Amino acid sequence: MQKGALVYEGKAKQLFTTDQLDVLYVQYKNSATAFNGEKKEEIDGKARLNNQITAVLFEKLHAKGIPSHFIEQLSETEQLVKKVDIIPLEVVVRNIAAGSLAKRLGFEEGTPLKRPLVEFYYKDDALGDPLLTDAHIALLELVTDSEKQTLEHLGREINTALLSIFDEIGVTLVDFKVEFGRTADGEILLADEISPDTCRLWDKETKQKLDKDVFRRNLGNLTDGYSIILSRLGGKSQ
Amino acid sequence: MQKGALVYEGKAKQLFTTDQLDVLYVQYKNSATAFNGEKKEEIDGKARLNNQITAVLFEKLHAKGIPSHFIEQLSETEQLVKKVDIIPLEVVVRNIAAGSLAKRLGFEEGTPLKRPLVEFYYKDDALGDPLLTDAHIALLELVTDSEKQTLEHLGREINTALLSIFDEIGVTLVDFKVEFGRTADGEILLADEISPDTCRLWDKETKQKLDKDVFRRNLGNLTDGYSIILSRLGGKSQ
Repeated sequence: MQKGALVYEGKAKQLFTTDQLDVLYVQYKNSATAFNGEKKEEIDGKARLNNQITAVLFEKLHAKGIPSHFIEQLSETEQLVKKVDIIPLEVVVRNIAAGSLAKRLGFEEGTPLKRPLVEFYYKDDALGDPLLTDAHIALLELVTDSEKQTLEHLGREINTALLSIFDEIGVTLVDFKVEFGRTADGEILLADEISPDTCRLWDKETKQKLDKDVFRRNLGNLTDGYSIILSRLGGKSQ
Repeated sequence: MQKGALVYEGKAKQLFTTDQLDVLYVQYKNSATAFNGEKKEEIDGKARLNNQITAVLFEKLHAKGIPSHFIEQLSETEQLVKKVDIIPLEVVVRNIAAGSLAKRLGFEEGTPLKRPLVEFYYKDDALGDPLLTDAHIALLELVTDSEKQTLEHLGREINTALLSIFDEIGVTLVDFKVEFGRTADGEILLADEISPDTCRLWDKETKQKLDKDVFRRNLGNLTDGYSIILSRLGGKSQ
């Protein structure tokens, strides 16, 4: 597969064309960002860890019946994905109160929620990715009602699958963010990445944070936790 | 009716008991506050204007079939209301993008919405009255699903009634916030106040702001606009 022109550069990845119209080449970056890009750092090893963790998780999700844009891992920091138009809604699923939810509703971080909570955020850096209600989503006409229901349903299915995947490796899935895209023929596919950048993951026994909160909150070396996640998931080591 | 003990003091009103258990005495205050109390000023005449505007509007709404806690105006700055337990949800109805909605969704202020938008905010000063989704409301168990539907329905009914009331006096109703309370027998009643403190009101011809944005944005003398609203509503003048 030939790597072509850069078509998109985000905070954590670059996307390139390939010689197939419906396939993109993803290059993970070492950049760590938080607070809508206000905090930023290059962290050696992050690209490799997130690329590999995402590859393993997308494969495990596929085995549980959840298709994604993922095709195959190419190298330590690269993977091939199906080309999709990203839907500008970040779907956040929460099992335990933490981060912005704890702050918004006044919950103590770590409070288990009675049932998983699904939230939608507007993927718009200039607006700071604001929380949206169903009425906002309808007003913005970002998705149809039926697509919105599909996103919520998929979010819950992915949560069920990820809870089991992480439970097996002694990790509590606190919450996560996923993005979806539409293929050329209108199918909605899980896209982007699933990694400690996009999940809150706590060691079940020690409660150690194994995710980007280590970076957001200056709690130590970010890649320590990411390496633990990759290793426990059985990912290829270096 | 005897004025008894102070039972509640908010940013704009004091509530006192009366010799009837289910009736409260409301004393409007001259305090103007904005940005969750960060900006604050005493404005002569504000208590009188808001008390009278609220009285006129609650009477007009009653005539249109929308009951409220309002019983009667007692004096320039005082009214009697039925005692209710305030539901800690602020119901905001918007016809035109302005304020926090314009900022959140990136709409230019003044953009008409395709249909009225109903939002719910958590009435909690310590949390800064955050926006809530339906899922947050269910999680917080602040109201039942059926009560939530009632609040949304009443919000829309009040909007229809207020649009007509303000249209008749040459004023555009941009948006407004209302609060509701439960009576001892569980009835949900419109409560609190409806005034230029809680509505965005623009003169139809001149587009002059006749509401609290004059105070929020330092655009001039707040009571000028409030006096225009009271006078056009046919309220008792001084």
